[in-house]
Amino acid sequence: MKYYRETIAFRTSAQTEFVDITNRVQEIVDASGIRKGRVCVYAQHTTMGVCINHNEPMLLQDFMNLMERIAPTDAQYAHDLFELKKGRKTDGRSNGNAHCKALLMGTQAAVPLDNGHMMLSDIQSIFAVEFDGSRDRDVIVSVSGI
Amino acid sequence: MKYYRETIAFRTSAQTEFVDITNRVQEIVDASGIRKGRVCVYAQHTTMGVCINHNEPMLLQDFMNLMERIAPTDAQYAHDLFELKKGRKTDGRSNGNAHCKALLMGTQAAVPLDNGHMMLSDIQSIFAVEFDGSRDRDVIVSVSGI
Amino acid sequence: MKYYRETIAFRTSAQTEFVDITNRVQEIVDASGIRKGRVCVYAQHTTMGVCINHNEPMLLQDFMNLMERIAPTDAQYAHDLFELKKGRKTDGRSNGNAHCKALLMGTQAAVPLDNGHMMLSDIQSIFAVEFDGSRDRDVIVSVSGI
Repeated sequence: MKYYRETIAFRTSAQTEFVDITNRVQEIVDASGIRKGRVCVYAQHTTMGVCINHNEPMLLQDFMNLMERIAPTDAQYAHDLFELKKGRKTDGRSNGNAHCKALLMGTQAAVPLDNGHMMLSDIQSIFAVEFDGSRDRDVIVSVSGI
Repeated sequence: MKYYRETIAFRTSAQTEFVDITNRVQEIVDASGIRKGRVCVYAQHTTMGVCINHNEPMLLQDFMNLMERIAPTDAQYAHDLFELKKGRKTDGRSNGNAHCKALLMGTQAAVPLDNGHMMLSDIQSIFAVEFDGSRDRDVIVSVSGI
Repeated sequence: MKYYRETIAFRTSAQTEFVDITNRVQEIVDASGIRKGRVCVYAQHTTMGVCINHNEPMLLQDFMNLMERIAPTDAQYAHDLFELKKGRKTDGRSNGNAHCKALLMGTQAAVPLDNGHMMLSDIQSIFAVEFDGSRDRDVIVSVSGI
């Protein structure tokens, strides 16, 4: 078995943002030299999710609306009160909502490989999803196979 | 390491449908000859999810109701307006809701193997979940291990 | 490739409970002797989820509130009626809500390894999440790599 890993580092710019990392993940698969196996994308964060869906700008807006309905930014979260009390929120963030959104989306996705290419359909993209931007983010891409 | 992959192709019949693919996945594990490792089930689609839960017909209805409450079919989605404007919706589908449902469910699941058998409990089944049927669907099953 | 697997067995005490299993998973990674690869955590249950997020008590309360808003315990579920009719609910549980919560959270998580350590950030913990306690639970931890 071969195993190869790289980290994609980037800075998000908006509060909520779908960052399409498909091409960067494929480049890492290319660099791995692995032809058959699986690539796993893992967000090393608690207010960022990973998902696979269609990169269509209006649909991404629907996704933001969906996540906002489920965990509204302006609702009250015990986490935010706690952090304020402890004096930990030096950056002024109240990000309980972002943790909730990330919880439901999940922190990783995996895609099978065929002859060195991710088996995504034509309209599938891999996204790192920022829920508490802007921040510096690290997404770990690991490839395993033969 | 051994690696083996097959695609399960099928046609869904309903708008929303939980397709139990447990037996077909186990057949692929059998064909792989892999005894220890992991099987990964991946839906190559943006309006289909993959999940593991109990195949109990009334519960599946609860799951459909749950997903419908979260992303109602008859709500307005920017994606649907976009597609209509671009003249792309030649099949008359308004499937923003289906993308939202698939986003939350996720596109893959993985199960560990023990002596060539998936380590599912007696009441765990693997489902490919159609949210925008009826359609032809491909689910990729990859097995890795020793 | 090396492959190693152990089961974490424990009993939950509350109806809903976030059980932090991070240290026990790392112990299994240690026992595996695997330095590079991936660890996968799989809940062999249909009313338990697995997730990765911040172990902050007030935030865990927010997560419980979130899941309860999405699938309220006191709503009516067809599953519960069915089970009652069939006389199967000998323990008096009405757990349709717990299945729904587990469906959205998902049954597994995977973390990449670096030099034998899980690549979690300082505030990431791995949780097995009970939605229908108290019960005896088995979580399967499998490590694969080199």
